[in-house]
Amino acid sequence: MAIKRKKISVIGAGFTGATTAFILAQKELGDIVLVDIPQAENPTKGKALDMLEAGPVQGFDANIIGTSNYEDTKDSDVVVITAGIARKPGMSRDDLVQTNQKVMKAVTQEVVKHSPNCFIVVLTNPVDAMTYTVFKESGFPKHRVIGQSGVLDTARFRTFVAQELNLSVKDVTGFVLGGHGDDMVPLVRYSYAGGIPLEKLIPQDRLEAIVQRTRTGGGEIVNLLGNGSAYYAPAASLVEMVEAIVKDQRRVLPAIAYLEGEYGYEGIYLGVPTVLGGNGIEKIIELDLTNEEKAALDKSVESVKNVMSILA
Amino acid sequence: MAIKRKKISVIGAGFTGATTAFILAQKELGDIVLVDIPQAENPTKGKALDMLEAGPVQGFDANIIGTSNYEDTKDSDVVVITAGIARKPGMSRDDLVQTNQKVMKAVTQEVVKHSPNCFIVVLTNPVDAMTYTVFKESGFPKHRVIGQSGVLDTARFRTFVAQELNLSVKDVTGFVLGGHGDDMVPLVRYSYAGGIPLEKLIPQDRLEAIVQRTRTGGGEIVNLLGNGSAYYAPAASLVEMVEAIVKDQRRVLPAIAYLEGEYGYEGIYLGVPTVLGGNGIEKIIELDLTNEEKAALDKSVESVKNVMSILA
Amino acid sequence: MAIKRKKISVIGAGFTGATTAFILAQKELGDIVLVDIPQAENPTKGKALDMLEAGPVQGFDANIIGTSNYEDTKDSDVVVITAGIARKPGMSRDDLVQTNQKVMKAVTQEVVKHSPNCFIVVLTNPVDAMTYTVFKESGFPKHRVIGQSGVLDTARFRTFVAQELNLSVKDVTGFVLGGHGDDMVPLVRYSYAGGIPLEKLIPQDRLEAIVQRTRTGGGEIVNLLGNGSAYYAPAASLVEMVEAIVKDQRRVLPAIAYLEGEYGYEGIYLGVPTVLGGNGIEKIIELDLTNEEKAALDKSVESVKNVMSILA
Amino acid sequence: MAIKRKKISVIGAGFTGATTAFILAQKELGDIVLVDIPQAENPTKGKALDMLEAGPVQGFDANIIGTSNYEDTKDSDVVVITAGIARKPGMSRDDLVQTNQKVMKAVTQEVVKHSPNCFIVVLTNPVDAMTYTVFKESGFPKHRVIGQSGVLDTARFRTFVAQELNLSVKDVTGFVLGGHGDDMVPLVRYSYAGGIPLEKLIPQDRLEAIVQRTRTGGGEIVNLLGNGSAYYAPAASLVEMVEAIVKDQRRVLPAIAYLEGEYGYEGIYLGVPTVLGGNGIEKIIELDLTNEEKAALDKSVESVKNVMSILA
Repeated sequence: MAIKRKKISVIGAGFTGATTAFILAQKELGDIVLVDIPQAENPTKGKALDMLEAGPVQGFDANIIGTSNYEDTKDSDVVVITAGIARKPGMSRDDLVQTNQKVMKAVTQEVVKHSPNCFIVVLTNPVDAMTYTVFKESGFPKHRVIGQSGVLDTARFRTFVAQELNLSVKDVTGFVLGGHGDDMVPLVRYSYAGGIPLEKLIPQDRLEAIVQRTRTGGGEIVNLLGNGSAYYAPAASLVEMVEAIVKDQRRVLPAIAYLEGEYGYEGIYLGVPTVLGGNGIEKIIELDLTNEEKAALDKSVESVKNVMSILA
Repeated sequence: MAIKRKKISVIGAGFTGATTAFILAQKELGDIVLVDIPQAENPTKGKALDMLEAGPVQGFDANIIGTSNYEDTKDSDVVVITAGIARKPGMSRDDLVQTNQKVMKAVTQEVVKHSPNCFIVVLTNPVDAMTYTVFKESGFPKHRVIGQSGVLDTARFRTFVAQELNLSVKDVTGFVLGGHGDDMVPLVRYSYAGGIPLEKLIPQDRLEAIVQRTRTGGGEIVNLLGNGSAYYAPAASLVEMVEAIVKDQRRVLPAIAYLEGEYGYEGIYLGVPTVLGGNGIEKIIELDLTNEEKAALDKSVESVKNVMSILA
Repeated sequence: MAIKRKKISVIGAGFTGATTAFILAQKELGDIVLVDIPQAENPTKGKALDMLEAGPVQGFDANIIGTSNYEDTKDSDVVVITAGIARKPGMSRDDLVQTNQKVMKAVTQEVVKHSPNCFIVVLTNPVDAMTYTVFKESGFPKHRVIGQSGVLDTARFRTFVAQELNLSVKDVTGFVLGGHGDDMVPLVRYSYAGGIPLEKLIPQDRLEAIVQRTRTGGGEIVNLLGNGSAYYAPAASLVEMVEAIVKDQRRVLPAIAYLEGEYGYEGIYLGVPTVLGGNGIEKIIELDLTNEEKAALDKSVESVKNVMSILA
Repeated sequence: MAIKRKKISVIGAGFTGATTAFILAQKELGDIVLVDIPQAENPTKGKALDMLEAGPVQGFDANIIGTSNYEDTKDSDVVVITAGIARKPGMSRDDLVQTNQKVMKAVTQEVVKHSPNCFIVVLTNPVDAMTYTVFKESGFPKHRVIGQSGVLDTARFRTFVAQELNLSVKDVTGFVLGGHGDDMVPLVRYSYAGGIPLEKLIPQDRLEAIVQRTRTGGGEIVNLLGNGSAYYAPAASLVEMVEAIVKDQRRVLPAIAYLEGEYGYEGIYLGVPTVLGGNGIEKIIELDLTNEEKAALDKSVESVKNVMSILA
C-alpha cells in the first residue's frame, strides 16, 4: 500500500538522452535510469551523478543512475528511446535505417524483458519507421508505443512566429501532420496567436518562410553547431509527452501513432493529433483535410513507406 | 516607466555556460545573452536557438541569443563568466593560471565596457584567483564581483549525505569554507539532516569518507566522463547565485568574496558564508573557528596565495 | 545599482484581494502590500501575516504586509484594485455603481499620490465603468490603467470545454469580447482544443449551453456559495495580468482597455484582445467581426454606456 | 496498466480545507475531493468549482469536486481531515474535545469504509488527541495516521527569524518537539540560518521572544482576524506532508506520530521528528535531550494526556 515513485528509463545517454533525464528530474516526474552501451558506461554514470548533484540546489528529489545494465530499468513505467546513430556525411540513408533498426530491435528486446507493462516513447530517426520497428519488436499494444516529432516541430514553428510578432510563446500555437522535416504537413489554418489565426496576423510570404524554416529547423541547428544536432528542444518535447502519460493529463498533442484506417492509412506510424494520457495514446483525432492537405499527407506517407521498405 | 526584463549574459558557451543559460531561461530570470569567441560563434548561436525552441514547450518567455559580439551584452544586470580552458594532461598549473588570467582580463574589459553597473559571478578555475583577477581588472566594488565554489561543493556533500541516510536532499544541508577541491574546509559540525547534526546520524568514518568524496567530487566526474568535466551541478549552482541577486533574496550562501580583514585575511578572494542579494555580497558572516578549522583555513589561504603568486 | 524587488499593492483585502496577494507571493513576483480600510486593519494584518508564514513551507521569498495606510504602498510598480462592495439583495444597480465609484475615486487618489508611475489593474464591478473611473481620476495614460474580465471569462469557458471533452485545460482556449457576464460576446470560432476549432468537436447545442453557462459563471458560484462570490479564479486571473506586466511578457490576453476608435468605439473601456507587457497595454488587436458579432458587441457597448451614464 | 492520477480527499471545506485543496491542485499532486456536511454541500461545490476554474489560468490539471457524499472519496490515496469546530468564547475545553472527537469518529468511519488503504493526515484541534482518536477508530497501522503541527510551528518560527535577521526564509530552519501552542518544546539549538546556530546570530532575549511569539502564533492570527483563525500557513503545512507521502520523498519533517516507547513514552500521539515518505511515517528520529528539554517534553506529554483523558 506504500506509494512508490514512478520510474522512467532513458535509453541513449547522448546529449538528448541526458538532457531529457535532467528535465524529467527537475520536474520530479520519477526516478531516472539513464542507459547506454557498456563502452559508454562510465560517462553515463558521470552524467547521471552530475545531474543528481544538481538536485539539492534545484530542490528536486529524484534518484538518477547511469548504467549499461538493463536490469536496472526493471519495472519502468515509461521508457524513452533516444539511442541510435545520427546520419553522417557520406552515409547512405539505407545504412542509417538499417543500423538504427538493429539498435531499436536490441533495445526493445531488453526494454520489454524488464518492463513488460511500460509505455515507450521513441525519438530515434527516422522516427516514423523506428517507432514502427519498436512497435513490432515489442509486441505491445499500439497505444503504448509512441513516437515524437510534432511537439518539436510545432515548438520551432511557435518560436519563429513569436519572434515574428514579438509576442509571448505562451500564446502562440502550431499544428502539424505527417512526418518530420521535409515531410512535415503544417496546418497553418489551425495555428494561432492568442486564438487569432496566423493568416490574419502574418503576411502570406512571411508565413511560408516560417513554415519552410520549421521544416528545416533540425538542419538549421545542425549547420550552426557544425558537429552535432539539437538536444534542448527535443528533450523538452520528449518530457512533455512523458509528463502527459505519467500525470494522466489527456493532453492534445501531435504524436507518431499507429494508424489502422485513420486518415485512410493502414498499418503505418504517422504524425497525427492525439489525446495523450495515462493510457498512452488514448485517441487519434481525425480532421477533415482540404485536397491540398490530403495530397501533402499522401506524399508524407509515401516517404514514410519508402523508409519502411528498407527495414529488414 | 515601462518594466523591462532583467538581462543576464553568460560568457563562455561550453557545456557549463550553455546549461547555465538554459536553467536561467527555464526560471524566467531574464533575457539571456550567450557569448563565446568568434571562432565558436555559430555553435553558440546554435545552442541559443535550440534552447529558445524549448521555450514554447517548457512554457518560458526568455529571449536567448548566441553571439561573439560583446555589444550584445550591453547593460546586462548580471554577467556570469565561465570562459577559459580546463587543465589538460601535461599542462602545468602555471600555464593554466596564466592562460585563464589572460582570458579573464580580456573578458572583463569587454564586460565592464558594455555593462559598467553589472554584477559579475565567476566560475572559471582556479576560481579564487580568477575572481580576484576579474575584481582587479574591473575596478568594480568588491560586492559586485563574486566567485562560485561553495554552492557546488555543498551540493555534492548534500547529495552524498542524502544517499547515505536515504533522505530527501531538501532536508540535508552542508557547510564549507575556503578554496575549492582539496583546499575545501568542510565544517561538518554545521551540517545537518532535518536540523540534526550529521555527527549524530552518520558514523565518523563514513562522514570522513563523504567529506573526502566531496573534496574530489569534481575529479570523480572528470574520471567518469573521461573527456570533460561536470556541468549540470555547476550550472545549477551559478543560477542559484544569480537568482539570489536578481530577486534580491538575501540568501545565506557560501561564495568567494573579497576579504578585508574578515577571518584575519586581507586582500584575497576566499570562500566564506555570505548574504547574497540585490546588492551582490551584502555581508560576510564571520564564525568562530576551532584551532583545527583555523589551521585548515590557513592552509587553504596559502594555497590560494600560491596560485595568486603566479598571476602576471 | 542594487537590484530591488518589484512592489505590488493589492487594494481590498477581501477574499479576492487576499487570494491575489497569496498567489503573487507564491510566484515571487514581488513584495506585497495588502490594503484595506482602517476598520479592517487588523484582519488585513492577520491575513498578511498568515500568508507570510506559508513562505518557509512553500519556499517563497516575498515580504507581505497588511495595512490601512497608503504610505506603505509608496512606489508600487503595480496596484491591483479589488476594493468596493458587492451588489446585495435589494440594492439598485445605481446604488452599486455610485458607491463603488466613490470607492474608486478615493482609492485612486491615494494610489496616484504614492505611486505616480504604477500600472493599475482593476477588478471591482461593474468593471468597465470602474476602470473608466480609475482612468479618469488617475490622469494616467490609458496603457497604464487596465481592467480584468476576459481572462476570467475565458478560464470558465475553458474549464467547461475541458470537462465536456475530457481533455487537459492546458490545450483548450477561449475568446471573448465586450463586457462581463450577460454582456459577454464569446467568439467561439476563435476557441479551440489542441488547435482544432471547438465547432468541429462539440455539437452546436452543447456549445451554446457552455457559452450560456460561461455568461452566468459568476452567478453560478454566487448561488452555490449562498453568501459571497468567486475568488480563486478571479485572483488567478488578476495575477496572470500582473505577471504579464511585471515580467514584460507581451502576452496576448483579453483585457478591458480604453478605446479611441478601435472597433468603432470612442472613449469607453471595453473588453478586447490586447498585448500585455512591460508597458501595460502595448496594443489592442482589432479583428474583423461578422455582422452578428458586431451587433452583439454594439449591444455590449450600450450596456457599458448605460452604466457609465450613472457615474456622477 | 494505465497510469492513474493520485486521489486526495480533504474533509472539511472551511478556509483551511479549501486552501489545502487549492494548493494541492496547484501542485498537480492529484485529483481532489473536497467534502463537507450535507448542509454545506452547495458552498463546498461552489468553492471546488471556483478553484477548478483557476486551473486554465494557473496551468494545472486536476479535477476538483465538492461533495457531501463520501462515496466520492472512494479509493483515495491520502485523506486530510480538517473537519471539526473551533473553540468559541465560553466553550469549555471538554466540550471542544468531545465535540471534535465525535466528528473524528464519524469522519473516520466514512473514510475507512471508502478508502481502506489510504494515509490520513489530521489537522483538527486538539490535534494530538484527535489524531489518536482517528488512529483508534480507523484500526489503521500507526504509520498511516499522522497529525500536523510541527511543520506549521516551525514555519512561523522561521518567518520570525528571517524577519529578525533580514534573510531569506529559504535558509532558516526551525525545530520543535511535543504539542502545539503552549505545549511546544522548541529546540533552538537545532535551529539555524544558513547552517549557523541561531544562538550565534540572535541575542538570547530576542530569541526567547521569538520562541514565545511562535508558541502563541496561532492566537496572534486569531486576535488579528477577530473572527476566525489562520488557514494559509496551516494549509501549506498540510500540503507539504501530503506531498512527501505522494511523491515518496522521505522528507525529515516534524509530525504527530504514535509513540511506542520512543522518547520514553507509550501509547500516545506526539510531535516528533520523523521521516515521511511513501509509507507515511517511515521512521521516528530519536534525539538525546538535555534534562531541561526532557522536562519540557514531559510537561507537554502531561498536557496531551490530560486532553486524552477527556476522550469518551
